[in-house]
Amino acid sequence: MLRTAGLIIIGNEILSGKCQDQNSFFLAAELRLLGVSLMRISVIPDDLDEISNEARSFSGAYDLVFTTGGVGPTHDDITMEGIARGFGVQLVRHPLLEDKFRQRYGSEANEAVMKMAEVPEGSEVLEFSTNNFPLVIFKNIHIFPGIPRYLQEKFTLVRERFRASGFYLKRIYLRADESDIAAILNTVVARNSCVTFGSYPILNNPEYRIILTIESKIKDDVETAVEELLAELPEGILVRVQ
Amino acid sequence: MLRTAGLIIIGNEILSGKCQDQNSFFLAAELRLLGVSLMRISVIPDDLDEISNEARSFSGAYDLVFTTGGVGPTHDDITMEGIARGFGVQLVRHPLLEDKFRQRYGSEANEAVMKMAEVPEGSEVLEFSTNNFPLVIFKNIHIFPGIPRYLQEKFTLVRERFRASGFYLKRIYLRADESDIAAILNTVVARNSCVTFGSYPILNNPEYRIILTIESKIKDDVETAVEELLAELPEGILVRVQ
Repeated sequence: MLRTAGLIIIGNEILSGKCQDQNSFFLAAELRLLGVSLMRISVIPDDLDEISNEARSFSGAYDLVFTTGGVGPTHDDITMEGIARGFGVQLVRHPLLEDKFRQRYGSEANEAVMKMAEVPEGSEVLEFSTNNFPLVIFKNIHIFPGIPRYLQEKFTLVRERFRASGFYLKRIYLRADESDIAAILNTVVARNSCVTFGSYPILNNPEYRIILTIESKIKDDVETAVEELLAELPEGILVRVQ
Repeated sequence: MLRTAGLIIIGNEILSGKCQDQNSFFLAAELRLLGVSLMRISVIPDDLDEISNEARSFSGAYDLVFTTGGVGPTHDDITMEGIARGFGVQLVRHPLLEDKFRQRYGSEANEAVMKMAEVPEGSEVLEFSTNNFPLVIFKNIHIFPGIPRYLQEKFTLVRERFRASGFYLKRIYLRADESDIAAILNTVVARNSCVTFGSYPILNNPEYRIILTIESKIKDDVETAVEELLAELPEGILVRVQ
């Protein structure tokens, strides 16, 4: 069965071009390796209505949802509140998180710090032996931090929970322009509706100018499509199949 | 008046983690410099329904819409068709584009090539003296290629069309943790509702551990907020204001 995912990147700093989002690429590549189909990425501002609408609609549309950003102690960290609002539940202090923050901050655990212990009511909190901060999961929404190093550490600890059956992928490297092969490619695509094809022009590579990707969860379907393509492509343009 | 924008990144290759999207960061930074507020980025697959829904809803929601990707000759290049469907108009061959492609490809201008001359009916086509490919604009939707070099060349030629009044931004660099300053920051934020504040923890920098950003189109509002913050922050943590 196809397992689908949606990714919500929360942060004004991305939309205003102050920093480049690294988390989308990391998660897209990880999910692919795990056999999960990432269907959509939304980058939205630190805004309660935007977060609540997006969380609710993604949660219904996809098997797995991931959010990044907006989980610190400052005014612009409103991911938890946004998700709670989206589902009409309260924000509550989670006892395990409360303990963690009291241990970590001691007498400096002021209101701003303890805000980080608040989660949408009904959240699951996953603890790790090797990582200080638990992962908060509300329904199918996995709430990750925005700082790439923290996100990557945490994701690596839970990635196996998300594994589905893998994809089978072949790449055909060609010395040609897309316009030379588009008609043939379109014919083969039309005959192989269970397979996903991609065609990517490559600039400034002395060896090849197009990479075709042929992909499916069913290996035989990919092999058939590759054979059809190789039989029909013009002579002399094939660099390699991989 | 605030000028808003939405960005639609079209391409399975981004969602499947095969390549990292470079266009979002480039356009976010450019739009910021031009004084345009980027409100949302959506990354969606090469799918007609997704493209048509997103184009229609973005076109209504934002002053300016930009799409990237899906404009070549192959089966997965369906941005033009998706936009046409979203507005219930036909795809038509544009005479100027038809001429361009006939000149460029001569007798090799087959159906697949000529597909690149098709635009949603009613599109505007902007020609440049220094660039081979015109820019297609349908209503407020600016249709850019996905290959970063081509996109950047083309955007640079038209960027001045989008200029609005600029943002005024100050950054405060602090040697502190977010939890030390969150309560003070939240108070100042509450008093300065016309200003946008950001708080960004920085890892592994010997000099500072937080950057606060204070931003508005009105310079005086930013200066006031900065003064309030500097007056209330704990002593000894300020590194610099910039």
